[in-house]
Amino acid sequence: MGRPALLLLLLAFLAPGTSLVPRRVLRTLSSLHLPTSPASHSSVATNYSVFYFQQKVDHFGFSNMNTFKQRYLLSDKHWDKDGGSILFYTGNEGDIVWFCNNTGFMWDVAEELKAMLVFAEHRYYGESLPFGNNSFQDVKHLNFLTSEQALADFAELIKHLKRTIPGAEDQPVITIGGSYGGMLAAWFRMKYPHIVVGALAASAPIWQFEDFVPCDSFMKIVTTDFRKSGSNCSVSILRSWDAINRLSSTGSGLQWLAQALHLCSSLKYEDIPNLKEWIMETWVNLAMVNYPYESNFLQPLPAWPLKVVCQYLVNPSVPDSQLIQNIFQALNVYYNYSGQAKCLNISETATSNLGSQGWSYQACTEMVMPFCTNGIDDMFEPHQWNLKKYSDECFKQWGVRPRPSWIITMYGGKNIKSHSNIIFSNGDLDPWSGGGVTTDITDTLVAVTIKDGAHHLDLRANNALDPTSVLLARSLEVEHMRRWIKDFHDNVKRQPLSNF
Amino acid sequence: MGRPALLLLLLAFLAPGTSLVPRRVLRTLSSLHLPTSPASHSSVATNYSVFYFQQKVDHFGFSNMNTFKQRYLLSDKHWDKDGGSILFYTGNEGDIVWFCNNTGFMWDVAEELKAMLVFAEHRYYGESLPFGNNSFQDVKHLNFLTSEQALADFAELIKHLKRTIPGAEDQPVITIGGSYGGMLAAWFRMKYPHIVVGALAASAPIWQFEDFVPCDSFMKIVTTDFRKSGSNCSVSILRSWDAINRLSSTGSGLQWLAQALHLCSSLKYEDIPNLKEWIMETWVNLAMVNYPYESNFLQPLPAWPLKVVCQYLVNPSVPDSQLIQNIFQALNVYYNYSGQAKCLNISETATSNLGSQGWSYQACTEMVMPFCTNGIDDMFEPHQWNLKKYSDECFKQWGVRPRPSWIITMYGGKNIKSHSNIIFSNGDLDPWSGGGVTTDITDTLVAVTIKDGAHHLDLRANNALDPTSVLLARSLEVEHMRRWIKDFHDNVKRQPLSNF
Repeated sequence: MGRPALLLLLLAFLAPGTSLVPRRVLRTLSSLHLPTSPASHSSVATNYSVFYFQQKVDHFGFSNMNTFKQRYLLSDKHWDKDGGSILFYTGNEGDIVWFCNNTGFMWDVAEELKAMLVFAEHRYYGESLPFGNNSFQDVKHLNFLTSEQALADFAELIKHLKRTIPGAEDQPVITIGGSYGGMLAAWFRMKYPHIVVGALAASAPIWQFEDFVPCDSFMKIVTTDFRKSGSNCSVSILRSWDAINRLSSTGSGLQWLAQALHLCSSLKYEDIPNLKEWIMETWVNLAMVNYPYESNFLQPLPAWPLKVVCQYLVNPSVPDSQLIQNIFQALNVYYNYSGQAKCLNISETATSNLGSQGWSYQACTEMVMPFCTNGIDDMFEPHQWNLKKYSDECFKQWGVRPRPSWIITMYGGKNIKSHSNIIFSNGDLDPWSGGGVTTDITDTLVAVTIKDGAHHLDLRANNALDPTSVLLARSLEVEHMRRWIKDFHDNVKRQPLSNF
Repeated sequence: MGRPALLLLLLAFLAPGTSLVPRRVLRTLSSLHLPTSPASHSSVATNYSVFYFQQKVDHFGFSNMNTFKQRYLLSDKHWDKDGGSILFYTGNEGDIVWFCNNTGFMWDVAEELKAMLVFAEHRYYGESLPFGNNSFQDVKHLNFLTSEQALADFAELIKHLKRTIPGAEDQPVITIGGSYGGMLAAWFRMKYPHIVVGALAASAPIWQFEDFVPCDSFMKIVTTDFRKSGSNCSVSILRSWDAINRLSSTGSGLQWLAQALHLCSSLKYEDIPNLKEWIMETWVNLAMVNYPYESNFLQPLPAWPLKVVCQYLVNPSVPDSQLIQNIFQALNVYYNYSGQAKCLNISETATSNLGSQGWSYQACTEMVMPFCTNGIDDMFEPHQWNLKKYSDECFKQWGVRPRPSWIITMYGGKNIKSHSNIIFSNGDLDPWSGGGVTTDITDTLVAVTIKDGAHHLDLRANNALDPTSVLLARSLEVEHMRRWIKDFHDNVKRQPLSNF
């Protein structure tokens, strides 16, 4: 969802000498005013029960016997044991209630697939904290925050559901997730194919690692989105960085800048890198949530928010002060669509829906995604990818060193053709599509591309303004899932399960 | 190989109230006089180089940054990059040199498959000790002894070889292993199919867990082996237990027993459970290494040792003292074929070729294999499988509790049909075949059964006395491997590798 991009970029765009991780995390979250009422931003009724399952803190060792409570949400309203299914959302880096309420697709297809819906929270996020308030205290407490442990949680939870819910044992399970959750959905099918019959991995950038894709692809897509959304839009943004640099070179310029951008606090010269990153992240977020209808995922936003933003950025050849005032208008679309914001705050603390610390740690360990810009093919200041610096910052922040190739060793990188039954969906507007699977690998590892689709648009609830492309994508996805479910039940009839 | 049976059985056959784990481990190893000269028991030249690779102690966490040296052996004598391959032995619970020298099959087929041979030592065995002499000190040091960590070691090692040996990157890798090593070979293909094109899992009892097979199947096969090897042989053994019980009820009987069995030390009444387990393990070992030619795997032995043993056990209807003297003659075949033993020692410490402590810990954590006997369908005293007691003993010994269902959660149990390219071979004489895959699961998950074959006979070097069945089995195995290798090279030609 929105957050991975932010934090990953933050980590990727470390300015020389800045101690980025903690500060940036805090700052990032300032930009996310997430809804607190579960149903407020969903057009579907999300009527679920909340449960907790006792998980081992460490699935991969035996010396630590601690357990913790993993939260999960369950709805069996449309579940029909006869020919039915279990759709299992592989929770990612945030509060599972928030993901549940932003995954309307599952609610929309539950009846058709006679599906029980399960939304499993990812350890170290939401309420599923292995060591409560101490979970992020130090590297010892954080040691069990890995994708492998999360997948093992999902495996144990599914086994638990099958053991304890009458009729669940003979049901096919399908994992579904978006963004990092989409990677988890796909990886779960790869690593535990005995537990799930297939996976829908929406906007899952499983190749945004090492050098599988050029490090500049992400920001090039962001730039293209802006370029297509209004005349001169990306050029205005490109020029804005120098305007900020020039204005910030004097005390009065700094003061003016803070005023023009309606910031809640004053600016010092050393805040400028942060300011620019904050603005950059805003553009990235906008590109991700450029949905065709009024929505409220990362922020309350109008339909096609990039078009609205770009209306303010049609003229790049204006004096610096005018350009910055235009930039403010554009930012204001993102931060103040509701009209409630009194000022723009670049240093607020985190909302509880997304786990800032957790993702920062994950990006410093397994989830090492290289990003870069050059200011020519994209609308940003040039930043090279520098693993050494990245690693040093991670060590300073968390006391850990990233292992950039581990994810590839574990999950296979581009060599995944021996797996089966995974749908990789990507919107062509989504910056993350650059690291995703966008062409079929085999008959059963299929790519679904959604024209005019932003970040996992297909996982969102049906909307009257949905483009045909996403309707088609969802229908393809359901078709695959129906076949997996049917195959499972046909097999069971032929040959009763001895285990699952 | 020989050891898993022993230690697993030991753990399985806990007599009430006995504190078994440490004592039994020591005792068991007393029965293994393993060759110390690498080539002494192999008919093929095993000319290899020894290397060490720096592995992370913990692949699944980031707080522990320790590394250790994993030993591996490498031979590239027959390796031909053009159309060649890498055969990778997934080391199991012992010294890798010993396994290397007992896996003549790989040496025999190296030329035909133009193969580089690699034998990787399993962590916590041989020289590959994560914490040196402290590796078994306590549960904290033992925490990294799991099959998952071992598989990750293999993955990292293969990537290292591909990175550092010119020409290795474009080579298909096949994992090969026997017994626990066979399970690792199969599991590696299941979990890392992007790294290996296939696996030969010889005598790998991947279903000897939970209730996938009846807990009495193992000992029933042992019994059948004895029954078929001589008239009244199994009946004599069945009756011997009561004879021992009767004789051990008096002090003079105990004294006589120790003398009649030529034990190195005297017997007390409380030693009797140990004595009986030691004898039982001897029969189990004999069933495993009942090879058709003179061999030296667990012990120097004649061809078809069971037949030789059973020559002494033709008459079960003799007085207790005569029966015990016959039992001694039978035991003596196993312990003194060389004629060098002055007495039979039931309390010797371990040879260095096999890792006693390591396997005891593994059996107390992941490798929980239920065994039982009833004295009716088998030739042993009745023992029920008692998980509670087993767990309590493990906790007393190692401070850990076994998780009997974890292996199934992790590796899929009987539901493995979505995987591919694994050969499961089993000898019909091998007690472990009861927990193995003995019928085809799919076209590419195939079972090879070896009539008159004991424990992974197919992995041993060619021998003039090999039965036709094992020649056929090896030829089938090579045929599959040739196809995997060819498919790999054909694919590479069509579409160069982007990663492996």
